Amino acid sequence: MRYDIAPVEELIEVFRRFPGVGGKSARRMAYYLLSRPKEESLEAARKITNAVTVVRHCSVCCNLSGAEICPVCSDDSRDKSIICVVQGPQDMLAVERTGEFNGMYHILNGVLSPQTGVKPSDLTAAQLLNRLDDGVVKEVILATSTTAEGEVTAVYLTNLIKQKSVRVTRLAYGIPVGGDLEFADEMTIQKALSGRSER
Amino acid sequence: MRYDIAPVEELIEVFRRFPGVGGKSARRMAYYLLSRPKEESLEAARKITNAVTVVRHCSVCCNLSGAEICPVCSDDSRDKSIICVVQGPQDMLAVERTGEFNGMYHILNGVLSPQTGVKPSDLTAAQLLNRLDDGVVKEVILATSTTAEGEVTAVYLTNLIKQKSVRVTRLAYGIPVGGDLEFADEMTIQKALSGRSER
Repeated sequence: MRYDIAPVEELIEVFRRFPGVGGKSARRMAYYLLSRPKEESLEAARKITNAVTVVRHCSVCCNLSGAEICPVCSDDSRDKSIICVVQGPQDMLAVERTGEFNGMYHILNGVLSPQTGVKPSDLTAAQLLNRLDDGVVKEVILATSTTAEGEVTAVYLTNLIKQKSVRVTRLAYGIPVGGDLEFADEMTIQKALSGRSER
Repeated sequence: MRYDIAPVEELIEVFRRFPGVGGKSARRMAYYLLSRPKEESLEAARKITNAVTVVRHCSVCCNLSGAEICPVCSDDSRDKSIICVVQGPQDMLAVERTGEFNGMYHILNGVLSPQTGVKPSDLTAAQLLNRLDDGVVKEVILATSTTAEGEVTAVYLTNLIKQKSVRVTRLAYGIPVGGDLEFADEMTIQKALSGRSER
C-alpha cells in the first residue's frame, strides 16, 4: 500500500537530491512544508523561483551574483595579482571569514568526480585560464577540498595553469585530510593559507 | 561586507526553518539549488506549489491526503476499534512498516512544546476526541515520542481520553528514551507495540 500521493512523492524527490539529505530527512522536510500554513509554503516556493530567476554568475569569478560583476571582483582595494580557486560560494565565504586574504577568487563550481559524473567541462576551468592571459595574475592558490576528488582536480588545474607560466600553490594540510573546506574553523584555514606550498 | 544578495539570503532563510537544518546546511542547500540548471530549480519550486496546493488533511485522521478521506481511513479491512495516535505522517509510516498494527491512526500534528510554541489548540486533539463519541473505539494507543514533550503530550491526552471512558495505552519503552519514533528500527517498534502498558 502506498501512503503518499504522487505530488508528495515528487516533493520528497526534490529534497532527496540536495547534498547531505537522505531519504528520511527528505520525507521529513516535505512533511514539514505540508504541515505549515499553506501561504507560508507557497511563499517558500516563490522565494526559490525569485532567487533562481534573479541570481546569475559573475562574468569574472563565476560566483553567484546579482549583477554582471560581483562585489568582490569590482572591489578596487583587492589584490588582482592573486586568485584563490574554490569549489563553491560557501568555500569563498569560509576563506573570507579568516580576514587573511585580500586577493581575488575563482569559483570552480565543483570538483572532478567520476562518481557524481562531474567532467572537466562542468567546471569553470576555461574561464580561470582566460583570466591568466593578460599577465596581471602572478599566483593561483588552489583551495579545493583535501578529498581525493579535490586533489585530483588540483593536479588537473596545476597542469593547465603551469602552461600559462603562472605560479601555482596549494593550501597547506592544516585542513583535516578528507574534510570539506566549508566546515573547517577559521584558525585552520589561516594556517593553511600561510603554509601554502609550491607546485 | 555582505556577499549574498537579498533573494539568496531569503532562500537560505527558507531552508533554515526546516527541521534539523542549521545555518551552514541551509546555505549549502540554497547554493545547490542555484548551481543547478535554472529549469530544474524552477521545476522544484513548481513541485512545492503543486504539492502544497493539492494536498489536504484527511477529515478523519488528519493525515496528509489527496482526498477527503485517506486510504487508511477508508480501508474496511482495518480494525476501527483501536486508534494509534502519532505526532506526524512519518511516524505513521514507521508503525506501518512493522506490519504489526491493523488499526486506525490519528495524526496529532506535533507535540506540546513551550520552546517551539506549540499549544493544545495547534494539535488535532479535538478531532481525536470527536472520533471517540460513537462508542466504536475501545482503545487509544499513545505513540508520541519518548521525549519530554512527547510524554507531557501523552499525559495531556490521557486525561482527555479517560473522560470518554476509552482505554488508553502507551507504547512500551522499547524505544530508546529521548529518541524520535521516526528513526527507531522496526523490531524496536514491534516490541513497543506488544509491551504497551495500561494508563
